[in-house]
Amino acid sequence: MNAAVTARTTSEPPELEERTPRPRASGLPGRVDLLGRLEGISAGRGLARLARRLAELMDFVGADMATFEDEFARLPRRPELLVGRGASHLLELGGKRLRPMCVALASRLGEGFDARVLDVAVAVELVHNATLLHDDVVDHSDTRRGTATARAVYGNAASIFAGDWLLVEALRRIERCRLPGLMDELLDTVEEMIFAESVQLENRGRIATARETYFRVAEGKTAALFRWAMAAGGRVGGLDVAGRAAIAAYGAHLGVAFQAVDDLLDLTGDAARTGKAVFNDLREGKMTYPVILALERDDAFQPLVEEILATPHDAPLADVTAGRVIRSLRQTRAVEDCLELARRYSAGAVACLAPFPQCRATRALATVAEALVDRDL
Amino acid sequence: MNAAVTARTTSEPPELEERTPRPRASGLPGRVDLLGRLEGISAGRGLARLARRLAELMDFVGADMATFEDEFARLPRRPELLVGRGASHLLELGGKRLRPMCVALASRLGEGFDARVLDVAVAVELVHNATLLHDDVVDHSDTRRGTATARAVYGNAASIFAGDWLLVEALRRIERCRLPGLMDELLDTVEEMIFAESVQLENRGRIATARETYFRVAEGKTAALFRWAMAAGGRVGGLDVAGRAAIAAYGAHLGVAFQAVDDLLDLTGDAARTGKAVFNDLREGKMTYPVILALERDDAFQPLVEEILATPHDAPLADVTAGRVIRSLRQTRAVEDCLELARRYSAGAVACLAPFPQCRATRALATVAEALVDRDL
Repeated sequence: MNAAVTARTTSEPPELEERTPRPRASGLPGRVDLLGRLEGISAGRGLARLARRLAELMDFVGADMATFEDEFARLPRRPELLVGRGASHLLELGGKRLRPMCVALASRLGEGFDARVLDVAVAVELVHNATLLHDDVVDHSDTRRGTATARAVYGNAASIFAGDWLLVEALRRIERCRLPGLMDELLDTVEEMIFAESVQLENRGRIATARETYFRVAEGKTAALFRWAMAAGGRVGGLDVAGRAAIAAYGAHLGVAFQAVDDLLDLTGDAARTGKAVFNDLREGKMTYPVILALERDDAFQPLVEEILATPHDAPLADVTAGRVIRSLRQTRAVEDCLELARRYSAGAVACLAPFPQCRATRALATVAEALVDRDL
Repeated sequence: MNAAVTARTTSEPPELEERTPRPRASGLPGRVDLLGRLEGISAGRGLARLARRLAELMDFVGADMATFEDEFARLPRRPELLVGRGASHLLELGGKRLRPMCVALASRLGEGFDARVLDVAVAVELVHNATLLHDDVVDHSDTRRGTATARAVYGNAASIFAGDWLLVEALRRIERCRLPGLMDELLDTVEEMIFAESVQLENRGRIATARETYFRVAEGKTAALFRWAMAAGGRVGGLDVAGRAAIAAYGAHLGVAFQAVDDLLDLTGDAARTGKAVFNDLREGKMTYPVILALERDDAFQPLVEEILATPHDAPLADVTAGRVIRSLRQTRAVEDCLELARRYSAGAVACLAPFPQCRATRALATVAEALVDRDL
């Protein structure tokens, strides 16, 4: 892996990384977590300009995000019920809060953050968490955000019902906004996510290089919710139809960039930072973008993937196998080109901001798009 | 088992029943299925009065139900997606359509069946099917409506996503009714169902006789959706607040009666008719009402239940064990008293109709309540 890529995606060679889970943060979980961590990382790497812009972003949106955290912490928990404990288990792990931040920033392109924007921000984070609770059952995942998944602790059934519950809680927030079309748009988005999950599920374990399938899954599973978060934030913030279309397009681009970086982190990430086991997607037979590139460019990669898929999920992957994967990803420049894809979509997101007059909100949105590509969590 | 009970719950002694699944009906599935079958059964048993009333009911609501079936058959199927095939698998098995019939009948207490009533009827059946898709995963069920479950054919993941999808489809129908409060009431109802499922899950396998827990689960898991179906049908049909409250109370009573009969069918039902394996609830460790009664009244019943719970789920239950369960249920009069509970709730449902002027709709609703207790499917 060349130095530039290493610097951007992980500070340690993947082979040497520690796979101990990150300890759970004390205090209010997830609070302006992404901002703080991205800032530290960027500054540490001498990306002083980006660090300055992240400080500006935090200055601009920090109060909104603190309001969000307060509201999110006040959600009903129902600890007397198994479903409540299952949901709380995930919610208390915090998260990057990227989607509610998208809602807040989109609203600030218009009339700004208010009670309805807060409802939409809470709803989008709840939908995201609902999908995680179902995905973890579907993927048999044992680790998320550096600790055991709700399904690992409370069982699959609790995780399924907890996901159902969080979706209901999300829809309640949208219903009380009483904005025509907002509910329909969210239901359309959730349907898109379900269909994309279905496509991913059906293609799982099939060694294939169809980019059409990759983008269909990335757009549906990941980008659709970012797109809705932006559109809904803009809608509640009073943007007109053209403004909402532009900001939705920003979200759609941002989502694909986010997914491409996620793909990279699965292969080269630091488990202690990402909170997820490395090679998790690959072992689940998901054809991520860098894997597609390596398959196309290195004939030896397919037998390697076959070997990995044949390894029982609970058995550790041999170091030599992991090393060969990493070497092939380097030699084929799959990592660089996946990062390049993320950069292209990130730049595409920024280009969608062109119709808006330059302001703190557009600057903040550009920072988010830029920082996402450089994230290592 | 005494003759009266036998006549009402099954025409064969439970020990002798054939456990072959009922073949899938050809033609439009589930079409006025319940009505037709109940009518045949009732007439066959000389319950001529009930048979006449069921014929009247069919005459009154048959056209509405045919409209419902046409609309339901036109739902998007998405056969190219795994999630679509999973959902269709269940939908094509038909069903008793009791909940949409409740919606239609409630609407006929007011201004009658129209496009919005149809949306509500479709929505309630979709919610019901969504819960079945998740329940079958949670309960590891392999058989439903006499054939393999969607999860058995397409896998747990497909069943989870299919349930999510049908819920979204249901909510879309409610959203387009554009009636203030209707969506909130459905979301509250779905939440109640989730909480009751959670209580049931947490108590599964615990040999306990708490009636409070039993009623909490029955009211939340089963009665809540009947209650909403009635209230929503009445709402869309233009009933006033008092009328909606009365008809909702009818639904709540009907739901508990339905659950009590379901409990009996698990123990004494004819698998060829019910489409479900006998002793399924018991083997899953669910404390149904007759089981609670037998536990209270027969000290030998607890070791029997312990033995059943210790039997691996894929192993057949010994005939001698099943026979002992049936004998204890007879000797303790648990079957009679559970049927008595169902009758009491059924009569309670009919009493809730008192505020309405007598008309074809109230007569039809009384027939439904009465017939439900005598159903054997």
